[in-house]
Amino acid sequence: MKLKVRNVRIETGFTEVVIINHRDAIKYDLHPRDRVMVETIGKKKKIIAVVDVIKTDENVKPGEVGVLFEAANALGAHNNDIVDLHPAPKPDSLRFIKKKMEGKTLTSNELSKIVKDIVDDMLTEIELTYFVAAVAMQELNLEEITGLTKAVARHGSRFKTRKRPVVDKHSIGGVPGNRTTMIVIPILAAFGLTVPKTSSRAITSPAGTADTMETLTNVELTLEEMEHVVAKTGACMTWGGSLGLAPADDKIIRIEKPMSIDAMGLMLSSVMAKKFSVGATHVLIDIPYGRHAKAEKRFEAEELKQHFLSLGTLLGMKVNVMITDGNQPIGRGIGPVLEAKDVLAVLQNKENAPQRLKEKALLLAAELLEFAGRLSKKASYEVAKDILESGSAWKKMQEIIDAQGPPKEQFRLGRKRLVLKAAKKGTVIAIHNKAISKLARMAGAPITKGAGLYLHKIVGDKVRKGEPIYTAYADSAEKIRHVKKYDKELEPYTIR
Amino acid sequence: MKLKVRNVRIETGFTEVVIINHRDAIKYDLHPRDRVMVETIGKKKKIIAVVDVIKTDENVKPGEVGVLFEAANALGAHNNDIVDLHPAPKPDSLRFIKKKMEGKTLTSNELSKIVKDIVDDMLTEIELTYFVAAVAMQELNLEEITGLTKAVARHGSRFKTRKRPVVDKHSIGGVPGNRTTMIVIPILAAFGLTVPKTSSRAITSPAGTADTMETLTNVELTLEEMEHVVAKTGACMTWGGSLGLAPADDKIIRIEKPMSIDAMGLMLSSVMAKKFSVGATHVLIDIPYGRHAKAEKRFEAEELKQHFLSLGTLLGMKVNVMITDGNQPIGRGIGPVLEAKDVLAVLQNKENAPQRLKEKALLLAAELLEFAGRLSKKASYEVAKDILESGSAWKKMQEIIDAQGPPKEQFRLGRKRLVLKAAKKGTVIAIHNKAISKLARMAGAPITKGAGLYLHKIVGDKVRKGEPIYTAYADSAEKIRHVKKYDKELEPYTIR
Repeated sequence: MKLKVRNVRIETGFTEVVIINHRDAIKYDLHPRDRVMVETIGKKKKIIAVVDVIKTDENVKPGEVGVLFEAANALGAHNNDIVDLHPAPKPDSLRFIKKKMEGKTLTSNELSKIVKDIVDDMLTEIELTYFVAAVAMQELNLEEITGLTKAVARHGSRFKTRKRPVVDKHSIGGVPGNRTTMIVIPILAAFGLTVPKTSSRAITSPAGTADTMETLTNVELTLEEMEHVVAKTGACMTWGGSLGLAPADDKIIRIEKPMSIDAMGLMLSSVMAKKFSVGATHVLIDIPYGRHAKAEKRFEAEELKQHFLSLGTLLGMKVNVMITDGNQPIGRGIGPVLEAKDVLAVLQNKENAPQRLKEKALLLAAELLEFAGRLSKKASYEVAKDILESGSAWKKMQEIIDAQGPPKEQFRLGRKRLVLKAAKKGTVIAIHNKAISKLARMAGAPITKGAGLYLHKIVGDKVRKGEPIYTAYADSAEKIRHVKKYDKELEPYTIR
Repeated sequence: MKLKVRNVRIETGFTEVVIINHRDAIKYDLHPRDRVMVETIGKKKKIIAVVDVIKTDENVKPGEVGVLFEAANALGAHNNDIVDLHPAPKPDSLRFIKKKMEGKTLTSNELSKIVKDIVDDMLTEIELTYFVAAVAMQELNLEEITGLTKAVARHGSRFKTRKRPVVDKHSIGGVPGNRTTMIVIPILAAFGLTVPKTSSRAITSPAGTADTMETLTNVELTLEEMEHVVAKTGACMTWGGSLGLAPADDKIIRIEKPMSIDAMGLMLSSVMAKKFSVGATHVLIDIPYGRHAKAEKRFEAEELKQHFLSLGTLLGMKVNVMITDGNQPIGRGIGPVLEAKDVLAVLQNKENAPQRLKEKALLLAAELLEFAGRLSKKASYEVAKDILESGSAWKKMQEIIDAQGPPKEQFRLGRKRLVLKAAKKGTVIAIHNKAISKLARMAGAPITKGAGLYLHKIVGDKVRKGEPIYTAYADSAEKIRHVKKYDKELEPYTIR
């Protein structure tokens, strides 16, 4: 049926929704939650949307269709445009999702069809959830993960460069203050390697690399701008979300989030699809393991390593994996501004630079210089150290920041502060990653960029009773009170 | 935060949704899809809702909250009421859903908590989908099914009567024209048994018992009205959906529908929860098996039988199961009005009454008279036959119809008709349930109550070339054309 568009500027966050009048609902036998195909007459765009029914004639009259924000964007529909709306056929990919639910193996073609339907918004939230649930419960084998990875990368934009090698790195999350990327990439680029680095924002942690980098520079680049920055400086550090490199992955992550789904197959394809999209030839994966890290035990880290190596082979990428210590936070600052301060201290060779962050960044950089830069094992570490300590890395970082443009605003440390002190004398024998992350988030990170924690003491340090252990930064007294209260409950430090 | 209610009369069909202004979204750090708790100040009601963000100040201003239809109903919120809105904690039941996803066994308490959260709308659509997916893929053991069944029944209304025994029957779907309930129940009630029968509407079939009964009488009773009808006549035949007997089940079914999920555990608990809710002491389950029936093979039917028997024992109900022939449709009419005509022909002992429907109804009624009515095997069939053929069952049916009240409108057979004829001479050796259902739905059933098929020939009948096989009824020429086209593709009859 033909209906006249009424733009309704409501954002639903995910599902594309159209509203029809209750009289039309009866007339055309449509019910709330029905799936409809909406097509623009002239522009020949079409989307699948879900129907809401409005019970009055106030906002959407008979003969009209209310098109919500996401649906209007996808359709390019304006007020008074005429669209054609009809019940939508079920997409083929539902059969393949059902097949996976039954524990069967999917072919690359079937996975590709599912990914295409995800990208084209042909699946409802419920249907996409069944896919994620099927993958989480029935698991994917290595061929399926390869197929999914390629499909996710192919149904999205690609970063192109003629330079070789193209180097990338990724750290499996879970360890706070693990901000090595912002040190490693300038070292590699200063050496002359091409490093088109994209990063994510924090989902469950107090800061992602994109959130941290954003305190220093613009990270919301278009693909063209990214290509320009890399052409000019050899590298970039940008937010992956604005590039459309793996749109299916973004949607899958949104479905995983409410249930904290942690499906190995989805994680592997999520990481590797983005490397595939930027055309990486050499990839280093950092897998920290330890209490409260994503991999808790050494054997889990080893298993994950094998998966990354095999997947690299199947994808035609050279992949190296380093298993690193994830028992405590890496830097001392936790939260975007605080982590950026740590990074700058290392790049600028300041006295107060956190040594564990510097050391880890040097090891990762050396590994990549050996692996992709064809240096010897011995030379690679010396070269990395020299690039960092000579100031070349800091110079390269400034070039990248200049090329990406100024940050959207000046972010400052939270004005409300609380110094947490040792209740007794002793030695710090553990710092708990999850508790630290939780407290930094309670302080307001990553939304409040200047919020977070600064750790005065790390594992092995001796403390006197009443000596400062960490300082919390926030922008409200309420959040500080919150941290104070939960510090007792979460006990982030163990002192004995 | 305190916000002023603006009722927005949009129905989303499932999720409870509130709309907040984009300025408030930034101010309170809320994002589309976030889960919030909304509480009325005075009335102390609270719901969990999902946030949409409106990008203009037109309909929902800063300081206001747009409350959509379902949410407003659940809250009892009116314009200008003040409500308190804050980020909602994750319900405990998410942990139990995750536990099931990991393949572990849930306790009755955990299942009860999940069901309570489903009923109280504490779970989002995505989260509920994970539950359904987990049950479909990891399966429930018998203890879990028992726990789920009791939880579903307990978190809902209950039908109460002091009469004993309380008799019920249920037929596993899949076979068109299987409208025995409307014959069996009057026979049992005429004998003096108490039969508080609730039925469902069609989901994927051309007619449910509720749809068919609705052409003769009112089926949308409240629980009080149902109790009144049963007290007066000994029985009722009403739509289960308006009674609130198993609200969790209704929500689960909505999530199963888009993917046609057919999870044994959910099906068993769905059927038995409703029997539990009406206080049934004696339940007969009819499991038709055959090509294109729900149970295709005899061993599947036997397996299902064992599950029902065991579940009955655990629930403290006497359960009997009959495995019946499901190879072809039971009656000759397919579609609400056509099936009602068949039922009336049997009750009124008309010449053209479909014999297979009559015979099956008598066997089921006899089984229940023996089982719950304490008759001997031999006497039970004779008594059932006598009640039917003497007109007592028809008299009882009229009493029930009178007590439930007149139908909402007069439904007539579709005016557009098409007679499908035999392409060759031979014998009908098969009629395909799925094809028949599909064609009847294409004709417009169950939405158009007078639409459907009438089968002139059944398996074993000889046909001459050009002889009518079945007639399709619809209310539009377009639908008739549709049936004509797909008849060739689906080949509902096999003649050899």
